[in-house]
Amino acid sequence: MKRRSFLAGAGLMAASAATLPAPAIAANVKRLKMVTTWPKNFPGMGVSAERLAARIKAMTDGEIDIKVYAATELVPPLQAFDTVSSGGAEIYHGAEYYWQGKSPAFNFFTTVPFGMTANEINAWIYHGGGQELWDELSAQFNIKPFMASNTGVQMGGWFRKEIKTLEDFKGLRIRMPGLGGEVMRRLGAAAVTMAGNEIYQALQNGTIEATEWVGPWNDMAFGFHQVAEYYYWPGFHEPGPALAVGFNLDVFNGLTPSQKAAVEAACAAENDYTLAEFNYYNAKALQTLITEHKVKLSRFSPEILAEFRRLSAEVVEEAGNTDELTKRIYESYKASLALSREWTKIADQGFVEARQGVALD
Amino acid sequence: MKRRSFLAGAGLMAASAATLPAPAIAANVKRLKMVTTWPKNFPGMGVSAERLAARIKAMTDGEIDIKVYAATELVPPLQAFDTVSSGGAEIYHGAEYYWQGKSPAFNFFTTVPFGMTANEINAWIYHGGGQELWDELSAQFNIKPFMASNTGVQMGGWFRKEIKTLEDFKGLRIRMPGLGGEVMRRLGAAAVTMAGNEIYQALQNGTIEATEWVGPWNDMAFGFHQVAEYYYWPGFHEPGPALAVGFNLDVFNGLTPSQKAAVEAACAAENDYTLAEFNYYNAKALQTLITEHKVKLSRFSPEILAEFRRLSAEVVEEAGNTDELTKRIYESYKASLALSREWTKIADQGFVEARQGVALD
Repeated sequence: MKRRSFLAGAGLMAASAATLPAPAIAANVKRLKMVTTWPKNFPGMGVSAERLAARIKAMTDGEIDIKVYAATELVPPLQAFDTVSSGGAEIYHGAEYYWQGKSPAFNFFTTVPFGMTANEINAWIYHGGGQELWDELSAQFNIKPFMASNTGVQMGGWFRKEIKTLEDFKGLRIRMPGLGGEVMRRLGAAAVTMAGNEIYQALQNGTIEATEWVGPWNDMAFGFHQVAEYYYWPGFHEPGPALAVGFNLDVFNGLTPSQKAAVEAACAAENDYTLAEFNYYNAKALQTLITEHKVKLSRFSPEILAEFRRLSAEVVEEAGNTDELTKRIYESYKASLALSREWTKIADQGFVEARQGVALD
Repeated sequence: MKRRSFLAGAGLMAASAATLPAPAIAANVKRLKMVTTWPKNFPGMGVSAERLAARIKAMTDGEIDIKVYAATELVPPLQAFDTVSSGGAEIYHGAEYYWQGKSPAFNFFTTVPFGMTANEINAWIYHGGGQELWDELSAQFNIKPFMASNTGVQMGGWFRKEIKTLEDFKGLRIRMPGLGGEVMRRLGAAAVTMAGNEIYQALQNGTIEATEWVGPWNDMAFGFHQVAEYYYWPGFHEPGPALAVGFNLDVFNGLTPSQKAAVEAACAAENDYTLAEFNYYNAKALQTLITEHKVKLSRFSPEILAEFRRLSAEVVEEAGNTDELTKRIYESYKASLALSREWTKIADQGFVEARQGVALD
């Protein structure tokens, strides 16, 4: 209520400043447009964008009022970046690797094959110099970026036939975008990109024979288990995709210090809350897929994983060794990942391996 | 600046409400005391408490002004809970398992041996019904709790002699508090509790022969590598300790909706930011310990880990099967962990195992 109370006209001069209610200042309400790359109320990503807007509005007592637009409502999803860069909207919510045509460096702020997990990219962005490099990259496009969600480790994908050897990738029509798709192409597959809502039918009618999407929660919602028998893990190509918010830099610089603090905390809070949401609902959906839908979970063979690793390193290195800023970003990413890998090995991995077999009941 | 501008006395009546600057309302500033269980500016926990206070102050434009007290500055650390419960201070920052004397259920909101990782406890608290149960437990003590940090997986501890078999625990004088300490006692060890700043000397002069603390970052700061040769992993006893903020419930209920939103987001933001901080600086310190201080990293043997698991299950079950509310909390924790374990296995663990061996350079 504090800034929505109206000043009573009478007696104002008599009242001391210390007891005045704060006025509702309509001119102070910033109405901002957030264009997103997600369908309306899309589980995980879309819902998080809406929740982020609600958090910021609540924290600023309505001073920042963000209207969220689903993909294509205002502009096509892949134009979100340009729209915010030029001031046609004030904020976008999406995945930075969608802008890799602007700079290959954007891949590192979402995910790369065999790259960082969610915990590792948080370490790099918050504490390992990642945010500063990201600010430098995005400022070239008049944008201030924040992490605002993470899907966690994704699944390897749905396949209509069993994948036994590397030969099985030859000619395989698979939906896999980005650098992961490039790894598939180097294996001889015909990797294609298509929007989420087109995948089910394409998989059903044989236009494609395999697809990756997100994880059990989102995948089950699309019903892929009805049209593909084999569900492979792990998702080597997207181990912890960070989703991002980008503010038009002029708009962000025009916020008050408290509004900036609210935006920053809201993004970090959503980053925490959404990763937990993916982890919780993925766990539940995985159980349903296995017990109710009798989905066969399969792990890629060691031979296949080794070739994924070799080709991923090649593809990521090519993406990283381009322009001067991208090289610096790649070097920073590599250095932070090299540190994190050793810690993850004895901490998270070490613990989870030790826990295997503990009786819970 | 928005609520710090002062009203100019003259011409006020002529100004329209729409253009009035908001007044600084001293009476609206809530000055709150936060008592903590951490030493002043203690890396990780103590710094996070200060940062949380700063975030809340910035977001509320000074309306909530929190003064942070280090352990013993206002009250002894373990009295923080009672102090806030009774209104002697408004907020505490600590670890819920410190209050296990009030109810064994508090253990589940920090960590239990072979329990949840940070990502798994976030899933439970935010999305698996954990917060609601925690609210119910804490309301009995007039407290509203939030997660506000997580140390991530801890280390198994420092040992002055090599631990080869279960026999080596017999009579071992080890500093390990809580349920982990109880596991040690059932192995025949003499588990003791002592404050952090007493450990180094006790380990040096042989009062104790082993100790757990946190992870490489905090452990190196205390210099344990100078007085113990073996550094064991994994930290089975504390796989992802959540640290908590507790508000006096009456004080929390007296906040405005926007202040409540700011507190909630600040806690979730710190939960995200601090886990990343522990992960980043643990990774750096681990490298320093190995390369500069030549510390020997050792993994507990499979035989020892199996016995840790057996005894942990026993100890946790005893703690969980007490009063009615604790039983409900334990059942909820177990159900969420059972789901998470299967997802973690193919997601985080599955990915990290597959990544082993990828060439980074």
